This record gives sequence, structure tokens and C-alpha cells, in this order.
Amino acid sequence: MKPYEHKAQYYETDQMGIVHHSNYIRWFESARIDFMSQIGVSYRGMEEEGIISPVLSVSCEYKSMVHFDDEVLVTPKVKTYNGVKLSLCYTITDKVTGEVRTTGESSHCFLNKEGHPVSLKKAAPHFHMLFEECLK
Amino acid sequence: MKPYEHKAQYYETDQMGIVHHSNYIRWFESARIDFMSQIGVSYRGMEEEGIISPVLSVSCEYKSMVHFDDEVLVTPKVKTYNGVKLSLCYTITDKVTGEVRTTGESSHCFLNKEGHPVSLKKAAPHFHMLFEECLK
Amino acid sequence: MKPYEHKAQYYETDQMGIVHHSNYIRWFESARIDFMSQIGVSYRGMEEEGIISPVLSVSCEYKSMVHFDDEVLVTPKVKTYNGVKLSLCYTITDKVTGEVRTTGESSHCFLNKEGHPVSLKKAAPHFHMLFEECLK
Amino acid sequence: MKPYEHKAQYYETDQMGIVHHSNYIRWFESARIDFMSQIGVSYRGMEEEGIISPVLSVSCEYKSMVHFDDEVLVTPKVKTYNGVKLSLCYTITDKVTGEVRTTGESSHCFLNKEGHPVSLKKAAPHFHMLFEECLK
Repeated sequence: MKPYEHKAQYYETDQMGIVHHSNYIRWFESARIDFMSQIGVSYRGMEEEGIISPVLSVSCEYKSMVHFDDEVLVTPKVKTYNGVKLSLCYTITDKVTGEVRTTGESSHCFLNKEGHPVSLKKAAPHFHMLFEECLK
Repeated sequence: MKPYEHKAQYYETDQMGIVHHSNYIRWFESARIDFMSQIGVSYRGMEEEGIISPVLSVSCEYKSMVHFDDEVLVTPKVKTYNGVKLSLCYTITDKVTGEVRTTGESSHCFLNKEGHPVSLKKAAPHFHMLFEECLK
Repeated sequence: MKPYEHKAQYYETDQMGIVHHSNYIRWFESARIDFMSQIGVSYRGMEEEGIISPVLSVSCEYKSMVHFDDEVLVTPKVKTYNGVKLSLCYTITDKVTGEVRTTGESSHCFLNKEGHPVSLKKAAPHFHMLFEECLK
Repeated sequence: MKPYEHKAQYYETDQMGIVHHSNYIRWFESARIDFMSQIGVSYRGMEEEGIISPVLSVSCEYKSMVHFDDEVLVTPKVKTYNGVKLSLCYTITDKVTGEVRTTGESSHCFLNKEGHPVSLKKAAPHFHMLFEECLK
């Protein structure tokens, strides 16, 4: 599995001269969608099948700062998955030095078009199988 | 008509120590929606009736800088409206000194659920009338 | 202490039709700075004295969704403070219904211009006293 | 010169189901910094030498919509440069179909640490030469 690469953009900095802490939550999302794509789950495709996957919780520990133009690697990993709920953890490291910048977690459920929770196992078994594979 | 008030947030600054220029485009939008609401056009209501109003063009001239915690007033004004297309201009001033920070413009069309351009005059005459009033 | 009021902006929504989860982290920041201001700590003033207060960790639990144009109240509260580290918790509720939308936490340290951790008690006793008051 | 590549992120969408128009202004910035880097001007390096280059004006025409997960190419080009002021134009096209999504322009000046306008020709002749090359 390839980590998600990102170069810190100017518009992501704040007046402390570092990347604003809210952006790491966005990078987690980008890495999550990229990871899904690598295991064969197109998030776009999932939405087109009428399933959305909102965020239930998110957490982030800031270990060291990312500056403008720094390149980082975001490595997501499936922590738990039971067909109804999915949780991932993330590590963000500097691409050059390998130093850890941030670690974090997020958890997600699956909803149908009516906004009701669904079991992926029933609603979209082809996606379910691919998530299950990640636990092996 | 009351101008739209906004306090510059920390997350809107960049490492130049000023508000990042992309945020003014967002403040234009906030002021536009607030202005519509004041003339009786609920943007939420318009979307619920199946009409969206995407941006066709936007421009912005940066006259002086806005810093974190500064309070600004955004004053939108309808420039042209013909039932099919709407254009507004905006002035952003410092709430305390009255100094002009930014001026800008935006133009918009109206689309139905299928993504086809519609005439508000036909599709939503109650909104059409309210926009026409702004030209008087 | 007055809660921080915010109206959900169009640019804060995503294609799920709800406010993107990263924005709540930003609202926590706005509420934190507003809260500090209410207890007499100007964050701008603190930075002008050469002290910044970066985020060490943040977490957020999403209980129910915020939609465009909804008004929310963000209520921050100091959880712990020992002169070196500050942690707050937050509750976001719908202004109309009072329903809880999100809860969360953040923790912060204090750094001087050289980027070294400082004790507020020594570096800025006037701010230290005001934070201590919050614990009573 | 290589165009700047970007994949539209989920957090860049809004409830219209398309990329929010303010993000194109950010993509212009990313492409501008990438372009400078390709001609030998490190924006980070320029700031470290004490020169910042704020935006004086920006404009954007939205021709067709960008959706989540679409890949776009942003092609910037120097329009005018006279040592004191720099203007660029941009074209954003879909990476797959080549269809034009957006065109735009931005103009910039150069300021020293004290916030005074400077001539790059005098303040940083090595950068000046590289911008002049772009006009040939």
C-alpha cells in the first residue's frame, strides 16, 4: 500500500508560520479516500450506489510542525471494521526526514440515501469484502 | 440594508500574517446570501425549490490588508439582473476605521435540478420580483 | 460566559449536503479565542507579547449533522490548566432546538518567539491569573 | 514547463455537488508557486530573503464544473512583469478530456520586511532575471 503524498500549500499555513491544525483532518480524509481506492473501493462509486460514509469521530495528536512546501506522507491503516462501522488510524511523517508529524484516528458509519445506517455486508457486499481483506 | 459583519478568524490567516486572499471570495458569498435573505430571498429555500445559483465569474481587488481579529463590513449591491443572470459588486471596509480593504464582483446564473439554465421570471416569479426590486 | 455563535456558511458544506467535519475544529478555535477574550486574555495581545499557543491535540465526536444556514452555539470550558498546558472541552448545540451537534476537546502549550515551551506563570503572569480564575 | 496537477478533494466540494468556487483561487496559488519553482524561483527562499509577494487582484471565469475526484491541470503563464509588478494568467483543464474548466488572472507586487514595495530588480536581481526570462 502506498502512503498518500502531499506538499503543504501556502493557503494551508496560518500566521504562526505553520500549517493550520485543521488541515491535518483534511489530509486524513484525502489519505483515507486514496487508501480505499488502492484496495478497490471507489468512494465516488460508493456514493453513486447511494451509500455515504460520514465521520463519527476524529482525533489528532500534533507531534511536530509542518511548514509551507514541506512534503509529507500520510499512512492510513484500518483499525477495526465490522460491516457497520469502520475505524482507521493515521501517521503523518516528513517525506525527507521520516520524522513523525502527527498521528490520528477517525471512525465512520455507512448511511443509505434516506440517512439510515446500513450494514455494508448487506448493502454492498463487494465493498464489504474489500474492507474485510484489510483486517487480515 | 445592513452590511454583513465578519471578524477575521485565526484559521483565515496565512504565514504573511494577514487574511489569505481566497477568504474574501468566501466573505462575498456570505454577504450575498445574507443580502438575499434581507430582501426576502432565502437561498436555502431557493435550493429546496430545486434552483441553484452557481458562480459564473468572480473578481477581487485587494486595497489594504485585513489582520486576525479585525472586524470588517461587507456591503453587496446588485449591479445587473435580467431574470437569467445576476451580478453583484462588493465593498469590504474596516468596521472601525471605514478604510476600504477590498472591492469585488461576482456574476451568477440559475440552474434547475437537471443542471439546465432557467429564467427565474418563469421558474420562481416570487424570487424574480424581489431581485427586480433591487434595481429600483 | 456567552457561547460563541456561528451560522453555518455555504462554503463550509460538502457534497453530503452537511457541514464538512473539518470545520468544527475551526469553530472550536473561534470559540476558544472568543472565550479567552471574554475572560480578559486577548489572543492577539498574547502573540504581540511573543507567546504563541499551538494545538497539541484535538478530538471531536459528531453526534448529529449541521446543515447550511443552521445557527449553532459553541460553548468552551477550561478542563485543566497548570501554567504550562491548557485543555478545553467544547459542546456545539443547535441554537434553535438545543440539540447537541458535536462535543470535543483540545489541548495547548505555550511557546516563546524561539519556539521553546514557556510557563505562562513566569512569562505572562497577568494571563496566567486569568486562566487560573477559570478553574475556580 | 509542466502544468500543476491536482485531484479535486472531497473537502473542496460544496452541497451543489461540485468544487466550491473559492478553491480555484487556491489552485491558482499552488500552480503559481509550482511554476516559480520550475523557473528557479523558490517562493520559500524569496520569503527567507525577506521579500513577500501579496496578491493585488484576482479574477476567475467558471466555464464548466469540476467534481470530486476529477483530475485537473492548472497551466499558469506570466502575462506582464516589470520588476515591480507581476501578473499571470491561468487555464484549468480536465486532465482526461482536456475540456477547459476555468480561466483566470492574478497580479502581485513585492514587499520587503517593513511592508514597503520594492523593485525585485534591485532587491533580488537573481529572481528578477528569472522572471524576465519568462517574457521571452
